[in-house]
Amino acid sequence: MNTSVRQSELFTKTKKETPTDEVSKNAELLIRGGFVHKEMAGVYSYLPLGLKVLRKIENIVREEMNKAGGQEIFMSALQPKENWEKTGRWNDLDVLYKVTDSAGREMALGPTHEEIVVPILKNYVTSYKDLPKALYQIQDKFRMELRSKSGILRGREFMMKDMYSFHSTTEDFEKFYEQMKGVYKNVFERAGIGHITYLTFASGGTFSKYSHEFQTITPAGEDTVYVDEEQGIAINKEVLNDEVLGQLGTTRDKLSEHRAIEVGNIFDLKTKYSAPFDLTFTDEKGGKLPVLMGCYGIGIGRLMGTVVEALADDKGIIWPEAIAPFRVHLLMLGKEADVAAEAEKVYSTLSRASVEVLFDDRADVSAGEKFSDSDLLGIPYRAVVSARSIKENGIELKKRTEEKGKIVSIDELLTCLK
Amino acid sequence: MNTSVRQSELFTKTKKETPTDEVSKNAELLIRGGFVHKEMAGVYSYLPLGLKVLRKIENIVREEMNKAGGQEIFMSALQPKENWEKTGRWNDLDVLYKVTDSAGREMALGPTHEEIVVPILKNYVTSYKDLPKALYQIQDKFRMELRSKSGILRGREFMMKDMYSFHSTTEDFEKFYEQMKGVYKNVFERAGIGHITYLTFASGGTFSKYSHEFQTITPAGEDTVYVDEEQGIAINKEVLNDEVLGQLGTTRDKLSEHRAIEVGNIFDLKTKYSAPFDLTFTDEKGGKLPVLMGCYGIGIGRLMGTVVEALADDKGIIWPEAIAPFRVHLLMLGKEADVAAEAEKVYSTLSRASVEVLFDDRADVSAGEKFSDSDLLGIPYRAVVSARSIKENGIELKKRTEEKGKIVSIDELLTCLK
Repeated sequence: MNTSVRQSELFTKTKKETPTDEVSKNAELLIRGGFVHKEMAGVYSYLPLGLKVLRKIENIVREEMNKAGGQEIFMSALQPKENWEKTGRWNDLDVLYKVTDSAGREMALGPTHEEIVVPILKNYVTSYKDLPKALYQIQDKFRMELRSKSGILRGREFMMKDMYSFHSTTEDFEKFYEQMKGVYKNVFERAGIGHITYLTFASGGTFSKYSHEFQTITPAGEDTVYVDEEQGIAINKEVLNDEVLGQLGTTRDKLSEHRAIEVGNIFDLKTKYSAPFDLTFTDEKGGKLPVLMGCYGIGIGRLMGTVVEALADDKGIIWPEAIAPFRVHLLMLGKEADVAAEAEKVYSTLSRASVEVLFDDRADVSAGEKFSDSDLLGIPYRAVVSARSIKENGIELKKRTEEKGKIVSIDELLTCLK
Repeated sequence: MNTSVRQSELFTKTKKETPTDEVSKNAELLIRGGFVHKEMAGVYSYLPLGLKVLRKIENIVREEMNKAGGQEIFMSALQPKENWEKTGRWNDLDVLYKVTDSAGREMALGPTHEEIVVPILKNYVTSYKDLPKALYQIQDKFRMELRSKSGILRGREFMMKDMYSFHSTTEDFEKFYEQMKGVYKNVFERAGIGHITYLTFASGGTFSKYSHEFQTITPAGEDTVYVDEEQGIAINKEVLNDEVLGQLGTTRDKLSEHRAIEVGNIFDLKTKYSAPFDLTFTDEKGGKLPVLMGCYGIGIGRLMGTVVEALADDKGIIWPEAIAPFRVHLLMLGKEADVAAEAEKVYSTLSRASVEVLFDDRADVSAGEKFSDSDLLGIPYRAVVSARSIKENGIELKKRTEEKGKIVSIDELLTCLK
């Protein structure tokens, strides 16, 4: 990935107009900024700026999964019908896209990968000595959402990290599950939304009474959660009952209600998927037992959309440093030769120091437009070179989240960005 | 990506048996080595070792595309039917998978992306000043191959790099096209098959009389090509005629016949796809002209399969260094405490020096099995720690392509791998 890019060479441009067919803030801002392109409801292509953000989120997730002992794989989107029939989900899963070839053979288009990962493991697991294992991938998923109007928060096609863990004992599973809570916390901290993201007690779906979600507080959320600030945890509205309150040692008067987006979840699958595929292992005594499983998801695109929804202000996006497409947005204001020369000098100095910089070197764009584009794009630092900054012997540096900038020398700029 | 891995912790294992449902060498060796898992004909999942190779090829391709001025994007697999109707390919393209949702709406599952990239560009190109541009992605493609028996050489789902270039003049297009020939040459050189890969004159399909392919010589190839060794070029059998011989300044007696695999292609699309979408630009005189296009493909998985077909010997795979899953396969032979201690020391020394190493630390596996696994996996360097190597004060180092190893000290080992 190129660390430095000239805005004049980028093929995308910002747009002033709000797209008429989008109701969500994330889609509006990401399309206006040239981060994504809408193909149809719930389906987006990622343009250079958007892909840079997506890849940074991917890499944070990948590093944390590797640290947790996950082994990365890449499973197919086309999946055998037989596998889905075995788990009963060929007919039961509403969101499953089915693909038929001209010979009449049917396949599934993967909305999730339990039906694929379990048969893979079956090739390699025979004994308790082969366990535990954790496998993950970062890959495109397909789900038949009939109405999609949440931008990249809920798509028909979306990038997701899905991890599956395999254990010989409940104790071992529970240890890993607890560890994953911390791993997920790290991911959301590193992605810049840790302070508004809560481990949330939620419904377990069909195969487990309860599960854990990570919910990020933002008015655009589809879910309602009740936050216990003191404990730093939350309860999804759907499971707010006395049993849960008791289990978590909290009471209704300690809770505050918020709208939230689910940015990750962890599930106890037990033997729900290992049983139909007969994924078993031989224990120390020679007995044959089903493998216990957990699954752990994070929507990469959804996390990107959540950051936009939760952190943007009325001028545009605000990217946390760790996932911003660039660290610095360098603006050249004015066409004077000394301004251009100084801006080029700052650009090459930052590039040589491996600071990721987007250089707005466009000659035919007004200062006002450059400032509003910069606010829209949401790069953490804005560095301005203008006749005024040169007169003051420096560069005007401002954080996206600050109201006012200050004049710094090129050395001070490098120190600030260290 | 973890640079060092203990074989005892890897969830895959090698297999002695040849899979019964595979006729291709690449699938046989890749499945036996635990690089890939077959989901169904033409559909494979990539396991940790295979994904490492795939990512290395991806990164070589990405670096070369960036150097050529390409901007990376990521386009959707789900594609609007209208776009495919506009180009006439909704009904004409045999390999197109169509997906229908429960509301009866149809979509295409992308086999290629002209129908997506052109509408994206239409948002951003208005003037000749916006050109040239080159966009590329590395992404999963779907093609309805009714019979698939070439392993990862020709799949129904496969990872591909597709680039599209956009120009205002034929001259500019031709300059870029010539440049891309060199870029492709670099890719195949770096991937370790440059010496057997030829720029090949081929049929242009429906929209151009001729095109260029890159063909790698190997008996498993589906194509027949005629190589002019002196010029270092080839001609695909389908266009071997006097016109082509004349154009290339060669004669039939200078050509040798070979089987070959097409590992890349570059096409002059002219206005074939810009016209139906009305992708135009305003020239310097204010006239409105259609944008000229080129397209440039490399199958990432196919390149991986080609390397296996072309370079493997009867013991197993031989990975070129630049795309090998690891640089060194460290084998611990024997259970003696001093052997284990020495092997651990070598492993941590190599790991600290950032040498990618697979450490066969398995305690219950014989020396013979370890050697044959090592040959099967095809890692470039094999380093053996055994009672014998310790007696000789060193480590036995052997390249996968060499018959005999030599004893080296740990310092010499590091120097060899520098």
